[in-house]
Amino acid sequence: MKKILLLLSLCICILTWGGENPKYIFLFIGDGMSTPQRMTAEEFSRKIGRGQLMINTLPFHATTRTNSSGSLITDSAAAATAIACGEKTKNGRIGMDAAGVRKLESVAKVAKAKGKKVGIVTSVTINHATPAGFYANRNSRGEYYAIGLDLIASGFDYFGGGGCAKNDDKKAPGYKGDIYKLAAESGYKIIDSKAGLMALRPGSGKVWARGASGALPYNIDNDRQVATLAEFTAKGIELLDNPNGFFMMIEGGAIDWCGHANDAAGNMYEVLALDDAVKVALDFLQKHPDETLIIVTGDHETGGMTMGFAGAAKQMNMDRLAHQKCSNDVFKSKIDVARKSNPGFNFEDAQKMLTENYGFKFDNSKDPMTVNAQELQMLKKGFQKNKLHDAARIVMNRKAGIGWTSGSHTALPVLTTSKGVKAEIFTGFIENTEISKRIKSIL
Amino acid sequence: MKKILLLLSLCICILTWGGENPKYIFLFIGDGMSTPQRMTAEEFSRKIGRGQLMINTLPFHATTRTNSSGSLITDSAAAATAIACGEKTKNGRIGMDAAGVRKLESVAKVAKAKGKKVGIVTSVTINHATPAGFYANRNSRGEYYAIGLDLIASGFDYFGGGGCAKNDDKKAPGYKGDIYKLAAESGYKIIDSKAGLMALRPGSGKVWARGASGALPYNIDNDRQVATLAEFTAKGIELLDNPNGFFMMIEGGAIDWCGHANDAAGNMYEVLALDDAVKVALDFLQKHPDETLIIVTGDHETGGMTMGFAGAAKQMNMDRLAHQKCSNDVFKSKIDVARKSNPGFNFEDAQKMLTENYGFKFDNSKDPMTVNAQELQMLKKGFQKNKLHDAARIVMNRKAGIGWTSGSHTALPVLTTSKGVKAEIFTGFIENTEISKRIKSIL
Repeated sequence: MKKILLLLSLCICILTWGGENPKYIFLFIGDGMSTPQRMTAEEFSRKIGRGQLMINTLPFHATTRTNSSGSLITDSAAAATAIACGEKTKNGRIGMDAAGVRKLESVAKVAKAKGKKVGIVTSVTINHATPAGFYANRNSRGEYYAIGLDLIASGFDYFGGGGCAKNDDKKAPGYKGDIYKLAAESGYKIIDSKAGLMALRPGSGKVWARGASGALPYNIDNDRQVATLAEFTAKGIELLDNPNGFFMMIEGGAIDWCGHANDAAGNMYEVLALDDAVKVALDFLQKHPDETLIIVTGDHETGGMTMGFAGAAKQMNMDRLAHQKCSNDVFKSKIDVARKSNPGFNFEDAQKMLTENYGFKFDNSKDPMTVNAQELQMLKKGFQKNKLHDAARIVMNRKAGIGWTSGSHTALPVLTTSKGVKAEIFTGFIENTEISKRIKSIL
Repeated sequence: MKKILLLLSLCICILTWGGENPKYIFLFIGDGMSTPQRMTAEEFSRKIGRGQLMINTLPFHATTRTNSSGSLITDSAAAATAIACGEKTKNGRIGMDAAGVRKLESVAKVAKAKGKKVGIVTSVTINHATPAGFYANRNSRGEYYAIGLDLIASGFDYFGGGGCAKNDDKKAPGYKGDIYKLAAESGYKIIDSKAGLMALRPGSGKVWARGASGALPYNIDNDRQVATLAEFTAKGIELLDNPNGFFMMIEGGAIDWCGHANDAAGNMYEVLALDDAVKVALDFLQKHPDETLIIVTGDHETGGMTMGFAGAAKQMNMDRLAHQKCSNDVFKSKIDVARKSNPGFNFEDAQKMLTENYGFKFDNSKDPMTVNAQELQMLKKGFQKNKLHDAARIVMNRKAGIGWTSGSHTALPVLTTSKGVKAEIFTGFIENTEISKRIKSIL
């Protein structure tokens, strides 16, 4: 009797549930973000009093395999194609099948065809592999100009974040003018300042807002003169909201870049920037709980990051990373500038900059940030080889207890978490192609 | 109307569902098994035609934080205490609170008190930290003899797998005789052969079956003269089945040991051994779908294993690991024996053994297993330093594209997967303490 009742009520559940597809869909992608990146950022966030990460609070978890066709280790192009279009392809391809013949249809295009508004946001360049997977069909991710043309042709309602790479590449096949100019001609309102972004109101028509000519500054370096991923997301919601709902893809693109650089603090701050953007979507979900779906995934792991390191005495010391004040890239620039502006620039000068930017102490004290003899040698050697930024990064990773095994991508699965209407369909062990397949099934 | 119907049917679902707790509970723990271990084994298993791993097919996934009280990086004792008893404690403690004062109650003891039969199975020694967490209360995991006494006092129905460490430690405080002898006196039937294990039939009373005096041989080295983890699990089911059901904890304990050794092939074969045991439980679940719950988790990651490595040209080559024919430990023993038995043992002799056990070729061919100049130097240097096994391991990891950053544990979360009755309560982002808390809630 009990079982029949259960079965009956389950059936009613499914039948009544079945009709309610999400009106608003957010797909967040952390480029180069797998569990190690999510969790170092989590532990750091807790340590600095920022609290638990939003991306990790979503109730459904799916372990997501990332291999491309032909390689266990994917690149961002094949991963974007899998996530956006639902088919495995060769590394390098954007929205094309492995043979490079058949164009694939992205979930964003399906959403658009179904009458939803579509937004694409990223912290790196807007025609970089991950966003491109949602609007372009090109055999090589390197065809930036052509991808720019595809962006315009998509007619999507909102592009936000980083600028367009090679927007005026006169040598590109089929060149017909600057991409921004062409976009404006085809009806896009081009915005290129934070003030301009903030001033946008619903009813602006098609909008293309860039925060920079290239990628946005790293979150750790952003003095907030440039709009953040969260601000681009919030504006997207404001512009895209309409009775048919919207699909928005938001990429934390520079997590990957900091992964390639093995820059732990930079990496974590990029995850936090993505988390801030997810927070904006969660606030929206709270207002529209019966209509909203949020998915957070990654495209692959970058760096072979590990939460522990042989040289670190079985400890992780996340608090030490709070001493780092800029990305490793920016630190390199600072050193370069200092060297150029001061011909007598010596290791003592460099030490001051290391203290200022990495919190390293050179006073032989017991302070955990004091460099030991071995670390001092590393820094000196780095200074001599004009690779001080590399040495600084390595010493910081040692102090924090973070390991890296690669400057490239790895095959570690990523974590997909989800919340909201139909979130429960993203669970278990899935291929990355399932993300778009399952979103398409509920569009 | 639709929403009311949905709510109503959901309520009926929950109410009718609520009463059905699992009669049979399997908790599998991979010691040192996090996502990298699960996935390298997965890719290897697919590559060698063994197919998808059972442990990864379970439908519910939970990302599980493993920190102990006071350290982001746990040891197996604190992790076992958290998983078994539901409280974070200091590294080293078994079933005791962080202060070392209060005894904690394990989920196995609660199950026993509720009338269920209880089985504890492991591939390493039975009084090692992980199994001990389920029956012992000791301030230090090193108190092997005392933990042995706790094992006997537990009165659990079935112990299987590795033997008892320091079973006759006359210097131990409170020594009162050999642990096995005491166990026999308190009613345990002691079994010490595979034939003896296989001959056991239901109604045997309390059973303590060991496959070896210490840990079971590594799965990669086991010539099947010794019972496997799967065989100990199958026998457990046979012996424990009764109208009140059972709780069984099965540990893949040597995944961790191969992680400490950075032995990728050894590691994967240990995961496969655990997977074989999970297969046994899944077969049982298929026969008892309305009464069985299976949970598979890990206690922490070991080795900082990564699925990609800077030196491996952005490739993973899992097939190459199939050339490895024994664990790195056993290879070390083989080399030691060869050196001792042949005073003229030279690098040419060693090369033959490397070819035999690791598949390395020294013929300058294009074969992927051919060692290049750099790898040859590594092996020669290893031979000279009497560390050939270390060099072999490092070269194999390079060839396969597997990285490691540590010989210790790391703080990477583990993956908890589950299937069966109430499996859905193991989802989202959870602390490892939730495993026993949630199992207790459905006992």
